[in-house]
Amino acid sequence: MQFYAQYDRVLTAEERSLVDKARHFCGGAFSSEAHDAYMRGEPFPSDWYRRWAQEGMLGLQARREDGGHAASFLCKIRVAQEMARHSFAAAFCMNHHQGSLTRLSQTGSARQKEELLPGMLSGDILATIAMTEPSGGSDVAALTTTATPVEGGWRLNGTKAWLTNGLMVHALIVLARVEGADRGDNMASFLVRLDGASSVTRREIMVPGARSFRFAEISFEDHFVPTWALFVPPGEAFKTAIGGINAARVHVAAMCVATLEAALAEAVAYCDRRHAFGKPLLAHQGLRWELAEVATRLEATNALVFRAAECVERGEPIVTLAAQCKTFAVDTALWGVDQCIRAMGAIGTSGAHRLSMLQAEVRMAAYGDGTNQMLL
Amino acid sequence: MQFYAQYDRVLTAEERSLVDKARHFCGGAFSSEAHDAYMRGEPFPSDWYRRWAQEGMLGLQARREDGGHAASFLCKIRVAQEMARHSFAAAFCMNHHQGSLTRLSQTGSARQKEELLPGMLSGDILATIAMTEPSGGSDVAALTTTATPVEGGWRLNGTKAWLTNGLMVHALIVLARVEGADRGDNMASFLVRLDGASSVTRREIMVPGARSFRFAEISFEDHFVPTWALFVPPGEAFKTAIGGINAARVHVAAMCVATLEAALAEAVAYCDRRHAFGKPLLAHQGLRWELAEVATRLEATNALVFRAAECVERGEPIVTLAAQCKTFAVDTALWGVDQCIRAMGAIGTSGAHRLSMLQAEVRMAAYGDGTNQMLL
Amino acid sequence: MQFYAQYDRVLTAEERSLVDKARHFCGGAFSSEAHDAYMRGEPFPSDWYRRWAQEGMLGLQARREDGGHAASFLCKIRVAQEMARHSFAAAFCMNHHQGSLTRLSQTGSARQKEELLPGMLSGDILATIAMTEPSGGSDVAALTTTATPVEGGWRLNGTKAWLTNGLMVHALIVLARVEGADRGDNMASFLVRLDGASSVTRREIMVPGARSFRFAEISFEDHFVPTWALFVPPGEAFKTAIGGINAARVHVAAMCVATLEAALAEAVAYCDRRHAFGKPLLAHQGLRWELAEVATRLEATNALVFRAAECVERGEPIVTLAAQCKTFAVDTALWGVDQCIRAMGAIGTSGAHRLSMLQAEVRMAAYGDGTNQMLL
Amino acid sequence: MQFYAQYDRVLTAEERSLVDKARHFCGGAFSSEAHDAYMRGEPFPSDWYRRWAQEGMLGLQARREDGGHAASFLCKIRVAQEMARHSFAAAFCMNHHQGSLTRLSQTGSARQKEELLPGMLSGDILATIAMTEPSGGSDVAALTTTATPVEGGWRLNGTKAWLTNGLMVHALIVLARVEGADRGDNMASFLVRLDGASSVTRREIMVPGARSFRFAEISFEDHFVPTWALFVPPGEAFKTAIGGINAARVHVAAMCVATLEAALAEAVAYCDRRHAFGKPLLAHQGLRWELAEVATRLEATNALVFRAAECVERGEPIVTLAAQCKTFAVDTALWGVDQCIRAMGAIGTSGAHRLSMLQAEVRMAAYGDGTNQMLL
Repeated sequence: MQFYAQYDRVLTAEERSLVDKARHFCGGAFSSEAHDAYMRGEPFPSDWYRRWAQEGMLGLQARREDGGHAASFLCKIRVAQEMARHSFAAAFCMNHHQGSLTRLSQTGSARQKEELLPGMLSGDILATIAMTEPSGGSDVAALTTTATPVEGGWRLNGTKAWLTNGLMVHALIVLARVEGADRGDNMASFLVRLDGASSVTRREIMVPGARSFRFAEISFEDHFVPTWALFVPPGEAFKTAIGGINAARVHVAAMCVATLEAALAEAVAYCDRRHAFGKPLLAHQGLRWELAEVATRLEATNALVFRAAECVERGEPIVTLAAQCKTFAVDTALWGVDQCIRAMGAIGTSGAHRLSMLQAEVRMAAYGDGTNQMLL
Repeated sequence: MQFYAQYDRVLTAEERSLVDKARHFCGGAFSSEAHDAYMRGEPFPSDWYRRWAQEGMLGLQARREDGGHAASFLCKIRVAQEMARHSFAAAFCMNHHQGSLTRLSQTGSARQKEELLPGMLSGDILATIAMTEPSGGSDVAALTTTATPVEGGWRLNGTKAWLTNGLMVHALIVLARVEGADRGDNMASFLVRLDGASSVTRREIMVPGARSFRFAEISFEDHFVPTWALFVPPGEAFKTAIGGINAARVHVAAMCVATLEAALAEAVAYCDRRHAFGKPLLAHQGLRWELAEVATRLEATNALVFRAAECVERGEPIVTLAAQCKTFAVDTALWGVDQCIRAMGAIGTSGAHRLSMLQAEVRMAAYGDGTNQMLL
Repeated sequence: MQFYAQYDRVLTAEERSLVDKARHFCGGAFSSEAHDAYMRGEPFPSDWYRRWAQEGMLGLQARREDGGHAASFLCKIRVAQEMARHSFAAAFCMNHHQGSLTRLSQTGSARQKEELLPGMLSGDILATIAMTEPSGGSDVAALTTTATPVEGGWRLNGTKAWLTNGLMVHALIVLARVEGADRGDNMASFLVRLDGASSVTRREIMVPGARSFRFAEISFEDHFVPTWALFVPPGEAFKTAIGGINAARVHVAAMCVATLEAALAEAVAYCDRRHAFGKPLLAHQGLRWELAEVATRLEATNALVFRAAECVERGEPIVTLAAQCKTFAVDTALWGVDQCIRAMGAIGTSGAHRLSMLQAEVRMAAYGDGTNQMLL
Repeated sequence: MQFYAQYDRVLTAEERSLVDKARHFCGGAFSSEAHDAYMRGEPFPSDWYRRWAQEGMLGLQARREDGGHAASFLCKIRVAQEMARHSFAAAFCMNHHQGSLTRLSQTGSARQKEELLPGMLSGDILATIAMTEPSGGSDVAALTTTATPVEGGWRLNGTKAWLTNGLMVHALIVLARVEGADRGDNMASFLVRLDGASSVTRREIMVPGARSFRFAEISFEDHFVPTWALFVPPGEAFKTAIGGINAARVHVAAMCVATLEAALAEAVAYCDRRHAFGKPLLAHQGLRWELAEVATRLEATNALVFRAAECVERGEPIVTLAAQCKTFAVDTALWGVDQCIRAMGAIGTSGAHRLSMLQAEVRMAAYGDGTNQMLL
């Protein structure tokens, strides 16, 4: 599409074909099944993780020697956008898993890869990062989860909140304070398996309309973590976690852009088809101006995201730009999808269209990676 | 409360006690049951119609000789606001029934009252007005439902859409063209019983998050309507329907105000309690300014609604003022509840708070009584 | 006008005739002379102060025994609005003088009145309040002007800034710290004559487009103030100054409403007259919606101002409401006048219309009485 | 600067040095003289046209064989931005002249160049395009200026309005209907000399604060135009005029970006320096968030403009993108400069800072090249 043309010019041919594959995959049964689940108040079927894996998508950025595509950041964005056009939540969750996988591929030990990589590539083991705690999102100094050194590893105690896919995830990258290390500099991260352990408790965080995120709190009570599972040593884990945050913000912004682009396309198509007072809705100037303003701000967001994404790709420092990018994209998407729905009339809120779902899901983009407000 | 002080000064003592009764009723089990139902993706329990009836609230504006309170418009607004603070949808639906009842009490024939009034007062018979059709909302000239004169009455054919309580309503005031009457001037309205008739088909209109409205389409296929059920004769029904629209707009605006007031109170209480970076959220100036702006626009809306309501009470012409009132109140409420949720962080979207429900319900205020866009 | 009908219902017959007089006065030569001066980059002719005095308007709220009308706050607002419809700056400046006069009439000593009242009533002596200093507006704790007790009075040292009419004012009510009194509680105010004194220096503060305010800094160097001129004793002056701020905010808000009302009327008249693409501008739905939104927010502001003004009249505490009122009115006026200008096309910015002047003047409403930002 | 880094990567070394030269030129005496003139209510001194010419800037895009630099569109934008950082009006006017010169260089006949090119390159002959008429801006079908064939040329009759530099311009490219040619297809354009002719009348269009544009209406009464002066033949002139409009919109948008960037930099510097309540203004979170939002939208506009400019450079069709670009940039600049002024407090409106001038000038960007409203 013309809208994404800036990307196409810089992607490799292989990357462009990955994007094409994603487009066809997401535009098929995936799209209607995700919407049907939403209408029933359920998460989209978890089976889609395996099907997405079969397309090779979970290893999008994993190293080639690990079975991945070693795709660029721009390619990753485009692939996620193709999914976000049909379900922001699914794109968000797939990406959280894929991001964990990428980090494992790039920095994990041989033993860590042996334990987790094949399962993560096939979608049998789903993973995500566990940083936030119930006491607060962006206030990292307040983190209280601890890892106490014991024979053969550590014992983990504490609670992590707002975990993406938390209801079904099999492994976590947990940020915790290592007892005995210097306070302030004692943050490490661990690859933590969850399956079947009685020392792990999950509690759903119910967000109406956003169940596809499968948000949960997960508590550890003396949960054992073996020595090989230390992922980032004390004193470096916080830096590493923060290090990835700029790219994550740009990535979320890119998905917001795609979700709004899809919503606008659906609204325009409807308003062109539907008649009132003897002509198409879109022929009424007032309504047309409203949708034109959505299109305008969407283009601006698209251009800003591309600029920031290029900076990420080149490894340029973009703390401010990434924060601006996320703030602006989230605001534009929330406002824009709402404008689209209102332009359509009451029918726009109903199950006859996908906009209600897109709206309910995309609003979660405001949270995570530091709330908008904390960015500035 | 200070916020509603303008009303208190002009209500009678009896009216003030009705408002108090409504406040206590709605702040109790009703509030939590409505929210619980929302979290399960279900409408609030229909039983609450009967309990509200037992408080005498369904006959709020009915004539005293019909067993009502003959309350003023300002009183009706305040009662609806007390409910809208806990569920916009419930307040909206109760009011649609109560409005039908009021019209029956004020203009119905003895026979019509005999058939319907006792049941409507007790909540056993629920009624609403049926104007909109699937082909479009505000474009009345396009209405196609017909009433064909037959022995002893009429046969009704056509489909009405977006009916409040449509899934369970027992009677409708149906706007239809009477065959044989002059086209353009052939609109009449009928009191139509629905129970058990095979000539009536209902189809749910699913609006995620807004199931408490119980929206439905209802189709008639040669549905028989007896002679006594003619409510407004041909040539006058459309005028009558439009005649009530200004008051209806002000009323909806007033409910929006109350819903936002409740949402803001909940957000402020939370942000005062919750700490980040060593002090309450509310002590962070940026966030405080955001909520202060919500409070400011809310006060402006409140003042505008009161002004318009006073005009309705005095019978002054307020076509423009009513339209402005509704537009502004709906816009402020949608924007304001959203700001409140975002100020709270992710938790604001979850079932731990009522704001998600208030947001999902109040957005339906944008539709009905002419969409905002068509008002201007 | 219908727009101001809420006021008319509560004003006395005498007050209504004062409003009528103001309307006729301001709609005549005053209006065009103010605009002509603006176009030449000059203040409006100072002669209008005396003419306004001849109408009895400078003593609007002065006590009857002092030759005033003892008009209510609501009446004062309406009179100021009639002038603000033609020049926000003139209404603002006239009111600063009149406010000083009112305070003198209500709380001044016999000697103080003897010295100043006749001249102030006739417009020969113009006065204003001097609180703000160059170091900052809203930060009162930082005030540094001092009054040192000397034989027969005080010596005043310091600089006051942003003085309304500062370029030509003859007397000031100066807030200063009295040397020797307790710090923190040492603020007094003085009636200070300026004429011809070499111990007084004036410096214009040039604000393009807003020269009618005649803003200036005035510095005192050992300026002598006689004993009789102590207006509010140490320890009470700050409280008194702050005490009037709520009413002042509501008053400024009311003038903003009138300025926008006048701008909108001019824009609507023009857009109804001017044709493009074969029909009046106003017949283009998009443009009409834009002006309709201005009208809507204007009505909301009008209702809010009236509510706050009623509270002032009744002496109810309205710290928050007054702040909200001012914030909202200023924001609405700045945004609204700009929308009106843009709707008209380039001609709206030119001297062919009054909107450019209204815009340049009304934006000064954002400052004074505490900036908007400091209110919250 | 980092802000303009996207451009620097694609400009040639020669182009980058032209941009540098422009930066130094505009940041010097030009900046203060332009502001001083604004404060006196006068246009910036016309002498600066010649000085700019001496830097070789008037021929920025003229062909090398005509003595120009044949610079790219991206380079032209960057040069104009450097001037727009100090005076939007000057950048706008210089560019109108330079655009006329470029068209002459690229498509003029030998005789036309001989007559006008040297004077236009030196700044002795200033030219601009004359399309708009008093009856309306964007409604081209309503144009009424006529060229009647006579011996040796044409006689021109009609009035052109809103001419940039109209008060002092020496030549115009006039769009006129040729009598005798087919109506609808009879638009031609002419190179028209104005000096000293009694058949030419000028009338200033006074726009307070924007006198540097030197707007005027120019009327022709039987003004003679020689044969050699036909610039675009009947049937092609309208197309040609419209053909350049997309690039013009992107160009104006780029200048808006630069003006806002300069205003924001000045506001941030001031708020960092100025203290209130014991700390810099910028340390107050609420105010900081407001300026951060300006920075965010500015970055988005910058990215959008760059994207559109690249499309212009590559000759891709961008009707919609150019319109969006202009709409968004104008809206952002008007809103953003206003936010900056308000953040600074009253001082921001005064002659102590440049923001009042930047605001007064940049608002004229909303007009010309089709008003924002007509774009959609």
